[in-house]
Amino acid sequence: MKAIKEFFKGDQFAARNNIELLEAGNGNARAKMTLHPHHLNGLGTVHGGAIFTLADFAFAAACNSHGTVSVALNVSITFMKAATTGTLWADAREVSKNFKVGSYAIEIKDDLGELVAQFQGLAYRKKDKLPF
Amino acid sequence: MKAIKEFFKGDQFAARNNIELLEAGNGNARAKMTLHPHHLNGLGTVHGGAIFTLADFAFAAACNSHGTVSVALNVSITFMKAATTGTLWADAREVSKNFKVGSYAIEIKDDLGELVAQFQGLAYRKKDKLPF
Amino acid sequence: MKAIKEFFKGDQFAARNNIELLEAGNGNARAKMTLHPHHLNGLGTVHGGAIFTLADFAFAAACNSHGTVSVALNVSITFMKAATTGTLWADAREVSKNFKVGSYAIEIKDDLGELVAQFQGLAYRKKDKLPF
Amino acid sequence: MKAIKEFFKGDQFAARNNIELLEAGNGNARAKMTLHPHHLNGLGTVHGGAIFTLADFAFAAACNSHGTVSVALNVSITFMKAATTGTLWADAREVSKNFKVGSYAIEIKDDLGELVAQFQGLAYRKKDKLPF
Repeated sequence: MKAIKEFFKGDQFAARNNIELLEAGNGNARAKMTLHPHHLNGLGTVHGGAIFTLADFAFAAACNSHGTVSVALNVSITFMKAATTGTLWADAREVSKNFKVGSYAIEIKDDLGELVAQFQGLAYRKKDKLPF
Repeated sequence: MKAIKEFFKGDQFAARNNIELLEAGNGNARAKMTLHPHHLNGLGTVHGGAIFTLADFAFAAACNSHGTVSVALNVSITFMKAATTGTLWADAREVSKNFKVGSYAIEIKDDLGELVAQFQGLAYRKKDKLPF
Repeated sequence: MKAIKEFFKGDQFAARNNIELLEAGNGNARAKMTLHPHHLNGLGTVHGGAIFTLADFAFAAACNSHGTVSVALNVSITFMKAATTGTLWADAREVSKNFKVGSYAIEIKDDLGELVAQFQGLAYRKKDKLPF
Repeated sequence: MKAIKEFFKGDQFAARNNIELLEAGNGNARAKMTLHPHHLNGLGTVHGGAIFTLADFAFAAACNSHGTVSVALNVSITFMKAATTGTLWADAREVSKNFKVGSYAIEIKDDLGELVAQFQGLAYRKKDKLPF
């Protein structure tokens, strides 16, 4: 867990967007994003790209938590509720995996525990070990 | 077009991520993202969230180019090729629309013209006019 | 529940494909498909279209179980395991809904309880009552 | 082309659903489905599963047209317009491929040439030759 956290600190895009890894292991992960004005779009709500980035980060932590490199092949994301301030929370869960691909479900919730977005990710599992 | 460009300058998340709107009108749009080290993930390639954000920005410009507010309902994105430096280009095309939803296809290419990601977005069309 | 079951008996495509509704109510539903040789593709495994149809049927039963007409806007389906014989089981769960759209997760399992496919559906909620 | 057509005649599910392969080669394919009452759902419109099956069949013909086995990993489908009678036409186009995956866009149109559904498929490319 410590090694995984250390590795994900190297994710400059996540760091710049105030995203922090809370837990990762056994195909699951949890992360959070503290909202700032720079997360907003022209309509004054949190940008879909920021929400996607948080979910994608939790997805990456979950699928890489097995210690080998996994890369995203395809993602489907559905937006349920607009967010503006506070913190967003991402929970990633491994739905299934075989030797070549893994499937993950990530839920993004706000401080009220209400669903902001639902993310379904498919990862290609390489044989390379993670560099840590 | 000038009004739309002006409106999208209010997108703080896009600005922070070096994304610029080049064209927008009639359901189509074109945008670019100049790559910097802060766009990279822990593996040293451009973060999926950054690629998504560029595509989502072009998608928003395209579906809002009719002058009424549209919000993303669902997106499916497929990643084809890793990117590291240079510029990424997004082209958004309106595939179909009716009174309630619109469907858009966005292609993300690198400086070689090779496909980095393919994005399919579905937007809900509100009746509200855009604030410009 | 009886009325919903009666209504879904009018689904000729489901009937022809040996799909049966087991339960429906409160945004959830359960259905099964008894496999026959006519469900197979050229590789001798159950056709993706047959698996999709089972999931889509459970999705429709779940989102229409509130008594008003809902129609599918978008679906993302991920295939995990090939199936050949026996029975496939679909469980549909309502993830969230608001006045205009509802989001549903459907899992398709085989007789061993192993995941064959995962289906994420987005429905547009009309105001019309179902004709029953 | 003749060999591919012959192979796809072994698709019992497609045959049962009045689906016919018109062309296949170089990663592209074209197919049609003649509509009958047995394609309808409880609302009297063509079942989403029937539309998906037609698109999936064209997708399979396109990605297998290279002569090696490809299997669907993930599909995203968006429904634009309800259909009831006549013929539906599917055009599959290869968007990109590398050694492990291929991405395909399939459009489903009615006799008026209007878009009924848009299908985006991701296939895993095995090394096995097709059995023909």
